[in-house]
Amino acid sequence: MVKSDDERFLRRAIKLAWKGMGRVSPNPMVGAVIVNNGKIISEGYHAQYGDHHAEIVAIKNAKSDITGATMYVTLEPCSHYGKTPPCTHAIIQAQIQRVVIGCIDPDPLVNMKGFNALKKHGIEVQIGPLEAECQELIAGFTRHRQFGIPLTTIKFAQSLDGRIATATGHSRWISSQTSLKFAHELRRQHDAVMVGIGTVLADDPQLNLRHVTGVNPMRIVIDSKLRIPLSSRLLTASDISKTILVTTASAPASKIEQIRNNGVQIIIAEQNGAHQIDIVALWKKLGSRGITTLLVEGGAELITSILKNRLADRVVVFVAPIIIGSGVPAIKNLSILQIGNSIKISETEWHRSDRDMIVKGSLIYPEQEP
Amino acid sequence: MVKSDDERFLRRAIKLAWKGMGRVSPNPMVGAVIVNNGKIISEGYHAQYGDHHAEIVAIKNAKSDITGATMYVTLEPCSHYGKTPPCTHAIIQAQIQRVVIGCIDPDPLVNMKGFNALKKHGIEVQIGPLEAECQELIAGFTRHRQFGIPLTTIKFAQSLDGRIATATGHSRWISSQTSLKFAHELRRQHDAVMVGIGTVLADDPQLNLRHVTGVNPMRIVIDSKLRIPLSSRLLTASDISKTILVTTASAPASKIEQIRNNGVQIIIAEQNGAHQIDIVALWKKLGSRGITTLLVEGGAELITSILKNRLADRVVVFVAPIIIGSGVPAIKNLSILQIGNSIKISETEWHRSDRDMIVKGSLIYPEQEP
Repeated sequence: MVKSDDERFLRRAIKLAWKGMGRVSPNPMVGAVIVNNGKIISEGYHAQYGDHHAEIVAIKNAKSDITGATMYVTLEPCSHYGKTPPCTHAIIQAQIQRVVIGCIDPDPLVNMKGFNALKKHGIEVQIGPLEAECQELIAGFTRHRQFGIPLTTIKFAQSLDGRIATATGHSRWISSQTSLKFAHELRRQHDAVMVGIGTVLADDPQLNLRHVTGVNPMRIVIDSKLRIPLSSRLLTASDISKTILVTTASAPASKIEQIRNNGVQIIIAEQNGAHQIDIVALWKKLGSRGITTLLVEGGAELITSILKNRLADRVVVFVAPIIIGSGVPAIKNLSILQIGNSIKISETEWHRSDRDMIVKGSLIYPEQEP
Repeated sequence: MVKSDDERFLRRAIKLAWKGMGRVSPNPMVGAVIVNNGKIISEGYHAQYGDHHAEIVAIKNAKSDITGATMYVTLEPCSHYGKTPPCTHAIIQAQIQRVVIGCIDPDPLVNMKGFNALKKHGIEVQIGPLEAECQELIAGFTRHRQFGIPLTTIKFAQSLDGRIATATGHSRWISSQTSLKFAHELRRQHDAVMVGIGTVLADDPQLNLRHVTGVNPMRIVIDSKLRIPLSSRLLTASDISKTILVTTASAPASKIEQIRNNGVQIIIAEQNGAHQIDIVALWKKLGSRGITTLLVEGGAELITSILKNRLADRVVVFVAPIIIGSGVPAIKNLSILQIGNSIKISETEWHRSDRDMIVKGSLIYPEQEP
């Protein structure tokens, strides 16, 4: 079989994997196809947390004999008993002859064990092609498994000169339909969306999916003094259990109780010496709740605090071709004194979105504390 | 003759016109070709201020008979006696049959008079194609003729979050070779380059052409108290007469005299009520000195002041994919309180330059004062 076929079939498996978006977390999205004589004879993907893994679905879906076939699977098959029996068993029992794996599972429980189990049973096993694409599928899962915290993307819209609002706080962006759709697609790709209380008080956002179809992400508000109005849209949404309020012990207990009784999740966050929410501890708490990917939509205080704590992994910035001058900066004080100690954006992608430019990239922090 | 031929020959004339860059100001750059039987038989361009116009050069350069030929010229031929006799006379005398004009001369002395003079003599005259390209050739000339001030471009390099330096003023950009070359190409395209005294004190810039070949632009420093060190590179350059210091009556007279004696041009600028340099009056003074295009390279104070006075026509921003947080903003207070009153960048072009992004555009000011 030529290499381009491997790529083609694995690309199909990747496409299938993405169908699990919003439904499988904190599990990874995985897709699989089974190929015999150069033709796809069965497909599967992990569709829902707790349901069968992609490999099992593909094996079960097969209408014809798969003995001697090749399986393409975006992630290394598991070899341990979790919620379901190990996939390696099923693959071996099905007498599949060759397995092409998109990438190795970062989970220490699996890492290379699935690969070796298959190999030991005489199955031809191969890693790649499209390793980067397959790793991207599980980026949140990887971060979560390795550090117990969500992969974090900060997102904001700014003027060319780096302002998210005028000095009076005015920030009604006339976003193009294309940019708006992209912003909601971003939400769709995350387990949870987060804003600071300032944004709630200013904009009363819904933080749900519009302009695209999919599963609404969890909605998290950082609100240490619990200033959120009971009438706000986040507290009156129909899927109210998706709203999480992060507050502190200094919030009024009666209001906490009232909001909790309405079905909203409340997290009482730890505070540091300066009576600010301990962001790192909070991130671990969010991780322990199974949130593997987090999109932070502002405001500037929250984003700056996350950057200072080096918790932001990625950035998405919508740049509008306007100049505002003094106003609310997108990013506040990071105590960076030398250009060499700035936070670098790597693998930068610049996309036109009508009149706006969308900048995407991964963040690389300086060696010394910024 | 088909339209694509007109385009092709006019494009050649445009290319010739650009060869006058840096040498013809405050005249416009103009190029001309003469075509007979679908072949270019002569070419010319305005090469030096005071020299022959492009049309005359092309007629004089002709080695064969041009009776009945077509002339392609980027700008409407003049019909008045200036430093040279009117070009329309020469065209009529040469018995050219058809003239394709790139664009009409905005100078009230010419505006449509050249066109009509040719037409009256039975010559077939046509405006366009490539009118926008031909207008771009003379953009500075047009601004200068209409308002007596230079077409002004502000240029700066910033982080993605809109900072030109850290809080300590550190601003050593590691610019790519591509970006550097582009920055010098920009200088080449302008009659003069301007900086504030802060930039001179911080960087001791040369403001000359490197990385590209061409004619050095004039170099202007805004220095109201004449703080410039006598040892600075701008005061010790070999082409010292290209340095212009703009200062005020409050500068020490002895230092003014000393610097002037070294061959530096000094402008004593008018001041407004707040003892600041009257920027609008200064722009008119620069215009009266024949500066038609001006590139302002910083710093933030000067750029902000120019924006406030609505004197910047265009912007070129180099955006580096880094985040600095609080520091020196590219643009300071413009008193813009509503997003709708922001300065819009129109005809925006975004170019990749290695890791940087270069944003270019024309500025559109809000209706009410920003």
